Amino acid sequence: MNSIHDQCGIFAVVGHPRAAEMCYYGLYALQHRGQESAGIALGQGPKIKSKKGIGLVSDVFTGEDLRRMPGNRAIGHVRYAVDEEITIENAQPITVKMWRGWLSVANNGSLVNAHELRDLLEQGGSIFQTTSDSEVVAHLMARSKAPDTASALEEALGQIKGAYSLGILTPQGAVAARDPHGCRPLCIGQIDGAYVISSETCGLDAVGAQVIREVSPGEIVSITMDGPSLKTGHSVEALASGTARRVSGPCRLQTKQVMEPLRQSLCVFEFIYFARPDSDISGLNVHAVRKALGRKLARKGPVEADLVTGVPDSSLSAAAGFAEEAGLPYEMGLVKNRYIGRTFIAPEQALRELAVRIKLNPLRSLIEGKRVVLVDDSIVRGTTSRHIIGLLRSAGAKEVHVRISSPPYRFPCYYGIDTPSACELPAATLDVEAIRERIGADSLVYLDLQDLKDIVGARVPGFCSSCFDGDYPVDVSGMGNADGRCGCR
Amino acid sequence: MNSIHDQCGIFAVVGHPRAAEMCYYGLYALQHRGQESAGIALGQGPKIKSKKGIGLVSDVFTGEDLRRMPGNRAIGHVRYAVDEEITIENAQPITVKMWRGWLSVANNGSLVNAHELRDLLEQGGSIFQTTSDSEVVAHLMARSKAPDTASALEEALGQIKGAYSLGILTPQGAVAARDPHGCRPLCIGQIDGAYVISSETCGLDAVGAQVIREVSPGEIVSITMDGPSLKTGHSVEALASGTARRVSGPCRLQTKQVMEPLRQSLCVFEFIYFARPDSDISGLNVHAVRKALGRKLARKGPVEADLVTGVPDSSLSAAAGFAEEAGLPYEMGLVKNRYIGRTFIAPEQALRELAVRIKLNPLRSLIEGKRVVLVDDSIVRGTTSRHIIGLLRSAGAKEVHVRISSPPYRFPCYYGIDTPSACELPAATLDVEAIRERIGADSLVYLDLQDLKDIVGARVPGFCSSCFDGDYPVDVSGMGNADGRCGCR
Amino acid sequence: MNSIHDQCGIFAVVGHPRAAEMCYYGLYALQHRGQESAGIALGQGPKIKSKKGIGLVSDVFTGEDLRRMPGNRAIGHVRYAVDEEITIENAQPITVKMWRGWLSVANNGSLVNAHELRDLLEQGGSIFQTTSDSEVVAHLMARSKAPDTASALEEALGQIKGAYSLGILTPQGAVAARDPHGCRPLCIGQIDGAYVISSETCGLDAVGAQVIREVSPGEIVSITMDGPSLKTGHSVEALASGTARRVSGPCRLQTKQVMEPLRQSLCVFEFIYFARPDSDISGLNVHAVRKALGRKLARKGPVEADLVTGVPDSSLSAAAGFAEEAGLPYEMGLVKNRYIGRTFIAPEQALRELAVRIKLNPLRSLIEGKRVVLVDDSIVRGTTSRHIIGLLRSAGAKEVHVRISSPPYRFPCYYGIDTPSACELPAATLDVEAIRERIGADSLVYLDLQDLKDIVGARVPGFCSSCFDGDYPVDVSGMGNADGRCGCR
Amino acid sequence: MNSIHDQCGIFAVVGHPRAAEMCYYGLYALQHRGQESAGIALGQGPKIKSKKGIGLVSDVFTGEDLRRMPGNRAIGHVRYAVDEEITIENAQPITVKMWRGWLSVANNGSLVNAHELRDLLEQGGSIFQTTSDSEVVAHLMARSKAPDTASALEEALGQIKGAYSLGILTPQGAVAARDPHGCRPLCIGQIDGAYVISSETCGLDAVGAQVIREVSPGEIVSITMDGPSLKTGHSVEALASGTARRVSGPCRLQTKQVMEPLRQSLCVFEFIYFARPDSDISGLNVHAVRKALGRKLARKGPVEADLVTGVPDSSLSAAAGFAEEAGLPYEMGLVKNRYIGRTFIAPEQALRELAVRIKLNPLRSLIEGKRVVLVDDSIVRGTTSRHIIGLLRSAGAKEVHVRISSPPYRFPCYYGIDTPSACELPAATLDVEAIRERIGADSLVYLDLQDLKDIVGARVPGFCSSCFDGDYPVDVSGMGNADGRCGCR
Repeated sequence: MNSIHDQCGIFAVVGHPRAAEMCYYGLYALQHRGQESAGIALGQGPKIKSKKGIGLVSDVFTGEDLRRMPGNRAIGHVRYAVDEEITIENAQPITVKMWRGWLSVANNGSLVNAHELRDLLEQGGSIFQTTSDSEVVAHLMARSKAPDTASALEEALGQIKGAYSLGILTPQGAVAARDPHGCRPLCIGQIDGAYVISSETCGLDAVGAQVIREVSPGEIVSITMDGPSLKTGHSVEALASGTARRVSGPCRLQTKQVMEPLRQSLCVFEFIYFARPDSDISGLNVHAVRKALGRKLARKGPVEADLVTGVPDSSLSAAAGFAEEAGLPYEMGLVKNRYIGRTFIAPEQALRELAVRIKLNPLRSLIEGKRVVLVDDSIVRGTTSRHIIGLLRSAGAKEVHVRISSPPYRFPCYYGIDTPSACELPAATLDVEAIRERIGADSLVYLDLQDLKDIVGARVPGFCSSCFDGDYPVDVSGMGNADGRCGCR
Repeated sequence: MNSIHDQCGIFAVVGHPRAAEMCYYGLYALQHRGQESAGIALGQGPKIKSKKGIGLVSDVFTGEDLRRMPGNRAIGHVRYAVDEEITIENAQPITVKMWRGWLSVANNGSLVNAHELRDLLEQGGSIFQTTSDSEVVAHLMARSKAPDTASALEEALGQIKGAYSLGILTPQGAVAARDPHGCRPLCIGQIDGAYVISSETCGLDAVGAQVIREVSPGEIVSITMDGPSLKTGHSVEALASGTARRVSGPCRLQTKQVMEPLRQSLCVFEFIYFARPDSDISGLNVHAVRKALGRKLARKGPVEADLVTGVPDSSLSAAAGFAEEAGLPYEMGLVKNRYIGRTFIAPEQALRELAVRIKLNPLRSLIEGKRVVLVDDSIVRGTTSRHIIGLLRSAGAKEVHVRISSPPYRFPCYYGIDTPSACELPAATLDVEAIRERIGADSLVYLDLQDLKDIVGARVPGFCSSCFDGDYPVDVSGMGNADGRCGCR
Repeated sequence: MNSIHDQCGIFAVVGHPRAAEMCYYGLYALQHRGQESAGIALGQGPKIKSKKGIGLVSDVFTGEDLRRMPGNRAIGHVRYAVDEEITIENAQPITVKMWRGWLSVANNGSLVNAHELRDLLEQGGSIFQTTSDSEVVAHLMARSKAPDTASALEEALGQIKGAYSLGILTPQGAVAARDPHGCRPLCIGQIDGAYVISSETCGLDAVGAQVIREVSPGEIVSITMDGPSLKTGHSVEALASGTARRVSGPCRLQTKQVMEPLRQSLCVFEFIYFARPDSDISGLNVHAVRKALGRKLARKGPVEADLVTGVPDSSLSAAAGFAEEAGLPYEMGLVKNRYIGRTFIAPEQALRELAVRIKLNPLRSLIEGKRVVLVDDSIVRGTTSRHIIGLLRSAGAKEVHVRISSPPYRFPCYYGIDTPSACELPAATLDVEAIRERIGADSLVYLDLQDLKDIVGARVPGFCSSCFDGDYPVDVSGMGNADGRCGCR
Repeated sequence: MNSIHDQCGIFAVVGHPRAAEMCYYGLYALQHRGQESAGIALGQGPKIKSKKGIGLVSDVFTGEDLRRMPGNRAIGHVRYAVDEEITIENAQPITVKMWRGWLSVANNGSLVNAHELRDLLEQGGSIFQTTSDSEVVAHLMARSKAPDTASALEEALGQIKGAYSLGILTPQGAVAARDPHGCRPLCIGQIDGAYVISSETCGLDAVGAQVIREVSPGEIVSITMDGPSLKTGHSVEALASGTARRVSGPCRLQTKQVMEPLRQSLCVFEFIYFARPDSDISGLNVHAVRKALGRKLARKGPVEADLVTGVPDSSLSAAAGFAEEAGLPYEMGLVKNRYIGRTFIAPEQALRELAVRIKLNPLRSLIEGKRVVLVDDSIVRGTTSRHIIGLLRSAGAKEVHVRISSPPYRFPCYYGIDTPSACELPAATLDVEAIRERIGADSLVYLDLQDLKDIVGARVPGFCSSCFDGDYPVDVSGMGNADGRCGCR
């Protein structure tokens, strides 16, 4: 229902005899980060075998696929397509053969100097087969003369700018890296001697791995396997009998801080909306943060009301926090249809007005005649808010008080989040009262940026709030309408 | 996650120019009642055209299908397969041609004398092409000499016994009926002069229809359209321009109490687990009932604890009620993966232990070191409860107190609910303390049957609680192990 | 390319441990008789399990399907849909449960009194779920009081009129029957003690079965298995080891001439066009007959020419015969694209003129400047002939002499062949010279009906030539436009 | 049935408003050249949009795909996968973005120095995402400093060695090139001012294009469109109304002989087996050549016999030629099942012996007691020949005399044809008598290489017969077992 979208989730396993299957389950847990394509690349000896497709993890992979993918290192990716058509070519990971051998690159984020680098690389004779930033990274690593993949990645990182959390499958294992601002999350876990890399901790939980720590901004982490285990995939029989697991041998994890951490800029929307509530980021549980935001919001925007409801699923935690703090009943005012996916056929013309109602149904008997506090995580375009408020009123709500667990969304994102341009963001030009009027609420209260900082800032060394304040941590001056003014035609 | 399953949802529209499309959206709202097959039958003039398939509504129907289905009366069905293989033959509605013309029959429920009637009909020369009870009803109507479909249905109902909520598309419109015990819900709504029949009110909401009332136990409701509108489907152009809608003309609703209502026996599990929280049954909102059950449970089984959590999605309302009444924080202790469906590939051998974890992830940071109240709607086999308690303990829960918002589940259902046999129900033989031990809880409290009656009974004239007390409203003595003793081999 | 179509192929196996797999291969060989749906019903103990689908045998069945179908009696069907939409409901075989147990009925042919029987059965309380004649036969058998299935079929045959070759899977094995006119072919073979029923001998060849004989007109053949083999399907392991085959035990074949054979009326188009050239009918090889027709045609319509060519694939045998008799070179003047099937996307508007050319390409270098004899099996509507002659002329043919290896096609078929109505058949109203002009040939010669009789008649006791002479062996007076005059609106 | 396979077919259209649709039909005609993947790349303004997939053209493209592909330049490819798994990554054409803009490369053939070039390019920092030779060509063009694509291709061709027929979609139109030996066919046609490039003339016929000429060995042909037509795709409405076609404007065809033609080495198997009989190569019709080979064979290996038969479809022309020359009847001794494709489920174990029979059925009534001449185009492994002879004998053939319309196949191909290694070729070590014995024929006669030269050589300046005589026109010494000795492990 939200009109902003994250870009991707990445997941890698090194040193586990069922690496591809582990990736499959890890990607299931990260599916909320991207639903448009999915892929898994599996190392088999020196080569890499890959399966990618359009759709959910469940659409792309069959049991037969997993059975055909024995091997002890693998990387997977789920993707939300930003500004291109949904094409299989841009599905990640991007698997390439270069003088270093076979590599497979997966990225969550967006390079601000991708166009510039592509031009330079093309001038140097490179060819591109996708529009993915991961392909740019692969080219830079291929051009590097550094002797090992970690050093080559270090050289590549020296050239790229923007938000990125990278995972790369290599002949020796895998490497992972985060941009020096730490814009996107990336963490490391361990299970049975194998290492796991995941965009969120919920991915580690899904495969039973213990969280070790996050990859630091500006850090490269290398995971290497011992020689013998690289040679062949393990037979299913060996895996079942447990003998295979021993073969995988110990993995080594090495790390290097390759870039001075810059102003820390973890995307604050990970806490507000993107991440799964059961993930921890910088040691903070996402659900707990959202609940705290809701509590704060209750103190900031108290209101006489009969009940509190959230918009499922993203603002339920904040709504519960609001209700507890306000001493109001927390109710399920809106029920979300769990079966609506890509293949849902939106109503045509005559039945158009049903579109929102089918997805979200207000509980009339609960709402009728009541003063309702509607807690939501953000207002981007404002159209969804207007629709939901309309639903509540049609279900008999006497008053609808909207409380938003983040500040007004005023600036587009340039770091891999798909946002409308500034001219479509009401908060770019309107004040809170005007927005309230537009969405049809009886009252509207946002959190302040300082509120967010108070709650998240204690543990997170710094976060990117450019969508709220226009303060972009990475220079975006070369990017069209990057001054935040409308670039629409 | 639950090991009991409802059987079906039915949805019909008469007098609306986009009847099939309306059914599509109605079935989306009823999808929780059956995920194994879906079908829509559309009246076109005297004939009926049908599309059925295995899978979710979204799997079975394409936009092309809907475009090819213009017509002003339609009936749809979603099905949970009980004791047969999932085959397309048994998908409903069952469309037949008889001397009365074309009819299409959809049912939610289960006849206790189906075998007997099949034998009789076969002796009389009938042939069966499915194992569906709807085919039995069709045969009985074909054998009836009554002049109109409603009377024929009346005669048929005189012969069948069991739980049923029937919808039948006829040449004149549709008829609906409920068994005299009122075991399964069925309601009627209206929109733009068209009538809508739905298993639950959430289906009416989905298409914007106003709830009129429920079909009464023992009642047959007939909806007939005026002659002209029956002749042809409307063109897409006419629909878009709005001219078609006028053509449909007024529908008439007629009703007849054909059987004396017997002991009222609405399946209490509709309130506890089956129905969507936004549905109303007998004027009671399902979420509100569940919340009240949770409140009652808090009074009945108070406990010193740090937080309350539910098992998503079915026990969230009860958990919220418990927390409010107990004055404890209501937390999202378990996060459910929203993307796991039919095509999920369950882990093999080596990774088997991941199966529950992938579906449900405990929030470690929330749970660690805490005394947790886990509210669930029921314990059937007990295996899921044991797994979930294990998850909470592995996430560091200091204590896990289980509170069940229904009485111990002790007897199998014979009215269309897929339940384990008695020998697999721990409550059939164990007392509460023994069950507590088996599932590994620190304490375990159930509601009493009287508690349910107190909360639901005010509005619901009577309900079936045979799964709790073995008091079967319809005689099941002819049905194998119907004495509640184990019939397993 | 031809505008007449046969209706079906049937194939059954009794007493072989891999009966369903045998059916699969048999249906592959009969695929030319119907490409719109395919189905296999397999007996497993007293029950019958069935898989049907729209499309070719290769579209409908997967290896998984076959693996899931162990059992020693099965029946299959391929279907060309005559006058209804292609729907899964009408796919055969039709599997029913009646007081006799489970039966599965497959038919090739068409009943002339189907409507009348349906009305009667409906009046008697029967319901229909398909528009297939096989369902009518099932109903009649269910209504019969005869003690065994063969006798019940005998009673049923006493009521039906028309062209039919029936195969029925029964609890004891299978029965087969042909109408007393012998309109459609049906033969019996044997392999390893198992019996096989097939529409054509090429089906027997495909599974390595020996041809025993044809089912006689008016005869019912019963194949029964001994008790033990009925009990269970065989395990794949048992099959592989060869132990299973022994279990199947001996089958008994019993026969009864239940109706006096009437005027023998085998559809002559089986020889001319429908049957596969490698099939034998009445002991005559189809290819050999076609070649003899070509020879006769060469004597009847000699012409000065440079080469002879046929229209692939149906008239290649006749063309070869013509060439040999005329002493002219037999050339591949037209090449057929082997990859065009159901999913071929016919060109729209601007490219419409390519439609024929893509399917059939003339060999310019062969044809240019040449006088060509084009041998075809029949002219139905005449449009295809006109197109092909146009193709040859555009490839530079100096003259195109058309020779047709059958008489002028003047009357529609009422026995299960999909033909245009009389008003679309040029030969219904035009003489040969006028047809020649319409299709644009330099000369046109048909065979006479007597020529067919001379060649086929020696072995075939009688055949139906109603499409040539309007002499319908079964009374069709009740069937709308059955007098051969145009019934078009 | 044959165990050698060609690699690909290419088809391109420049200057036609329905370029992608034209490609679709062209690829249908070239489908026999590769059935494992298909792709079409369409130029839309400066960009290229592509759809590729595993399977036949009919599997990969839907009507919706074609409707979404308006544009006036396109290139398509059908592929037979040689030595890799069938993966979507290696499907062609390969579409890349380089400093020259967007290009799409399709190739039929095989480079002998591909590995060497890949190593060199990787050393220079290139990355590879496929194992296709087309990607190598794209890299070389990207590295070239030449100002235009034709010159860049010229530079690239200076570096590659082997057999190739290339088509490349460029921002200006398309370029085509053949290796200086002319190993693989490639021809140019014209329709309505648009140019068409096709592997065979049957592709030109399919879209109604006039054959202009073949691309010469060592020649690059450039087709450029005028500026305006490059800007946008045409609307479907404009196309239908005929206005769009005018917009496309005139195309210019320019040509440059960039390499001295070397020893002419057209693959002789194009005449013997690969090409469609209705194609012309070097002005010779393929069917006519095959028929002449058959005549020659009749003179070389006369035999007392009753009939001549070919193996469908590839040797039918040769068999017809043999029969005419020998004065023996040409018969359809074997009927091929037309419905067996990729999804055919080969029989398991117990039914294994059916595998050949299902595909190919002997006409017993024709063959029984007869002395049969079996004409085939080649013997590669010999297993198929042995099976077919067995089929004929089991159908009662008294004698089977095998006549092969080519010389003994003794050496593997290194130019893109998938052949067994030498140790699997009986003719590599056995003399004709020993081969005869192995396949079980009564007599066996091959053509001599000189016979081929006599028939084909008059018009074809030279052809590659390395599979017969080991005389490889392009040096293959660097390629493993290229000395013709067995390289098997």
